[in-house]
Amino acid sequence: MRRRRSPDEPDEASEASEAGEAKDTGHRPSRRAALLGGSGLLGAVGLAGGFAAGQAVADDSDEGHPTVFDLYGTHQPGISTPVQDRLHFAAFDVTTASRDELIEMLREWTKAAERLMHGDSAGPVGPTSGDYRMPPDDTGEAIGLPPSRLTLTFGFGPSLFTDEEGVDRFDLAGRRPTMLAPLPHFPEDALDPERSNGDLCVQACADDPQVAVHAIRNLARIGFGTVRMRWSQLGFGKTSSTTTGEETPRNLFGFKDGTMNITADEDAELDEHVWVSPEDDPGADWLAGGSYLAVRRINMRIETWDRQPLGAQEEFIGRTKGGGAPLSGGKEHSQPDFDMEGSTGPVMPQDSHVRLVHPSHNGGARILRRGYNFVDGSSALGDLDAGLFFLAYVRDPDRQFIPMQNAMAKSDAMMEYLKFTGSALFAIPPGARKGEYIGQALFT
Amino acid sequence: MRRRRSPDEPDEASEASEAGEAKDTGHRPSRRAALLGGSGLLGAVGLAGGFAAGQAVADDSDEGHPTVFDLYGTHQPGISTPVQDRLHFAAFDVTTASRDELIEMLREWTKAAERLMHGDSAGPVGPTSGDYRMPPDDTGEAIGLPPSRLTLTFGFGPSLFTDEEGVDRFDLAGRRPTMLAPLPHFPEDALDPERSNGDLCVQACADDPQVAVHAIRNLARIGFGTVRMRWSQLGFGKTSSTTTGEETPRNLFGFKDGTMNITADEDAELDEHVWVSPEDDPGADWLAGGSYLAVRRINMRIETWDRQPLGAQEEFIGRTKGGGAPLSGGKEHSQPDFDMEGSTGPVMPQDSHVRLVHPSHNGGARILRRGYNFVDGSSALGDLDAGLFFLAYVRDPDRQFIPMQNAMAKSDAMMEYLKFTGSALFAIPPGARKGEYIGQALFT
Repeated sequence: MRRRRSPDEPDEASEASEAGEAKDTGHRPSRRAALLGGSGLLGAVGLAGGFAAGQAVADDSDEGHPTVFDLYGTHQPGISTPVQDRLHFAAFDVTTASRDELIEMLREWTKAAERLMHGDSAGPVGPTSGDYRMPPDDTGEAIGLPPSRLTLTFGFGPSLFTDEEGVDRFDLAGRRPTMLAPLPHFPEDALDPERSNGDLCVQACADDPQVAVHAIRNLARIGFGTVRMRWSQLGFGKTSSTTTGEETPRNLFGFKDGTMNITADEDAELDEHVWVSPEDDPGADWLAGGSYLAVRRINMRIETWDRQPLGAQEEFIGRTKGGGAPLSGGKEHSQPDFDMEGSTGPVMPQDSHVRLVHPSHNGGARILRRGYNFVDGSSALGDLDAGLFFLAYVRDPDRQFIPMQNAMAKSDAMMEYLKFTGSALFAIPPGARKGEYIGQALFT
Repeated sequence: MRRRRSPDEPDEASEASEAGEAKDTGHRPSRRAALLGGSGLLGAVGLAGGFAAGQAVADDSDEGHPTVFDLYGTHQPGISTPVQDRLHFAAFDVTTASRDELIEMLREWTKAAERLMHGDSAGPVGPTSGDYRMPPDDTGEAIGLPPSRLTLTFGFGPSLFTDEEGVDRFDLAGRRPTMLAPLPHFPEDALDPERSNGDLCVQACADDPQVAVHAIRNLARIGFGTVRMRWSQLGFGKTSSTTTGEETPRNLFGFKDGTMNITADEDAELDEHVWVSPEDDPGADWLAGGSYLAVRRINMRIETWDRQPLGAQEEFIGRTKGGGAPLSGGKEHSQPDFDMEGSTGPVMPQDSHVRLVHPSHNGGARILRRGYNFVDGSSALGDLDAGLFFLAYVRDPDRQFIPMQNAMAKSDAMMEYLKFTGSALFAIPPGARKGEYIGQALFT
């Protein structure tokens, strides 16, 4: 630390800089000022809306999507709320041995998450208005940026409950959900341990990547000394649609994928397939209203894929590349006809992706998916390090995720073009009530 | 390759899929249809505007920024055209020994670049309407996305002229610009050879990252067998403003940086500092109207930075963090007063970044900068692999870039928080005329 300004010797520099800054910020709304200007609206809707799931507290965007989500509610935001365009996902390991320090950090994270999702600075002082002798409590790169529909979603990995040596560090082993176990090794897994697992996770989704990155970075800063980032992943393009009938975005194979998955407006389906019910796991009742998040970093061999004939690509997937309709006909959201015969076998090939992961071949299991395209530079062979960062929210990973992943890994024609390089499973606690911290029921 | 559809045995599957597709695409404009719908406008402006520098050919955005740029003009687009939000930059090595194959690929790249910048598919057939037995000539992930102000900018590295063994592979050594030499080793360089140099480069900038990625990927696909991608880098947040007076975006230190650099509307400054003049290098007259691009991947030690006091951060930079005014006072674009004395020395510290790189301390040299923030996951130590991907366009790297980089590396207070992990220099040929290919003057 260098050249601290002593409070006893104010110099021309600090006076000048403060004057300059006041002038500068006078002609545009700051990140904070922009928020305060809308606080009447926020307050009013907050009062009227009361306690609801990941609910929007302000809506002035022209697409009808809310610009600000509420951290508090029955469920955490970022699961059944509308999918944003950009992702920064981070997994952390807890470095303290103190349960109290872990809880204190979760309290701090909760307060910061509420502020960040409203477009405010991570801490109450902010990036520029604090004591010049102290580090700011916000890093500043989001000054002037709108809230950008930021959602922050927190989860607990198996190792938080019992670490790799079997140690119960935080007196939590007795409350570990039965299904919260490390995912099994699947065929074609080539996992990088530095891209897998973790004690905690934070999913930051926003319309502006700088806002998502700013949130993760500030949570990491707040957690310094308590947690260490284990890995993180940016995603630049959402591959999941938000509501029934909305156009499904495309993955890096150029296809619409995940068309059959649950959308945010299917309340009955969410209750059946996503939200954990109190009776699901009586020993882990703290998870009721929460979910499980299966994370898979899926590298695509896109250079090889791009050399396949259009017809072969469509048969691998089981959909047309243009409109995304099943090869058996109809439109994107039409149900495939798996019995339709063509001249050389089923029109929906036996090893097509759509057939293998379809609910009718998986005991009715459906998932809620938040997938993001990623490109992380290129490999030494000249291939793009690119693919799909797959995030699936499910009520029961043993029934909904693991069998589907096994069926896909064993038989899916698309597997030739995939390599699984990262993997994790997290328990996602329910939403917090105002005044609580995220995951509080686990610790009480 | 599997399950090709034989042309002699059309089956129900292909009929069904075509029917499905026709229905599907009927209710929304395809990427191609969207373009054709606007072709009257494009054509009219193209005729009226004639031959001008990286000029916009359609403008219907609400920010007054054109949505489509022209590939053809005096200068390449992507240099003095307005800065977009997202970047995919790729460096390639030429793998063929044939000059003719290299030229043929540049022809193909030029045709594809024109199509891509107009929001069209990379090839004339497109992602979905070709022969089912053939790979499509576009990869499809940009179907339905607007042109997103895509610009593609091409460059030639020193190794294209004389490779590392001194071999003149393509009979170009005699036309190598004098200043096109590998950048020297600077203090604090910790360069990764897999993130440095390259025979060719392509800068893709767009408002949508999926559009930039799609462009680079399709150029790589077209170049298969002729070039191999050496490295590539995504950037998610621009850090450079476009026009005088526009708000400067923030880097990951949370500061506005590059405020003093040339903006796209300073024509006289562009002529003086960016565009190569015919008399600059008579042995390389093909470069007249072009420029040089210095590329530096700058990792920021942001976790350490975040623990520095606000006052120290401001003194490292020489600006206020809030408004970005020089510490000597004024507003963001005010000239710093390097002579102003504070109680403990100059108000603008001797080792402040702004002082060291200011034109008045660098023989009047200015640069045109297109910097992008990046986060590429995190390191094994738990730090974000994050920083600034610095792109500087200059007329004379020996005078404008190298001395500035040396001054910074030797004395800049900010250097404690930086690590340079990638580096390259490219010659950027002038814009092509319609019917020419990019860089044609080099080969004729």
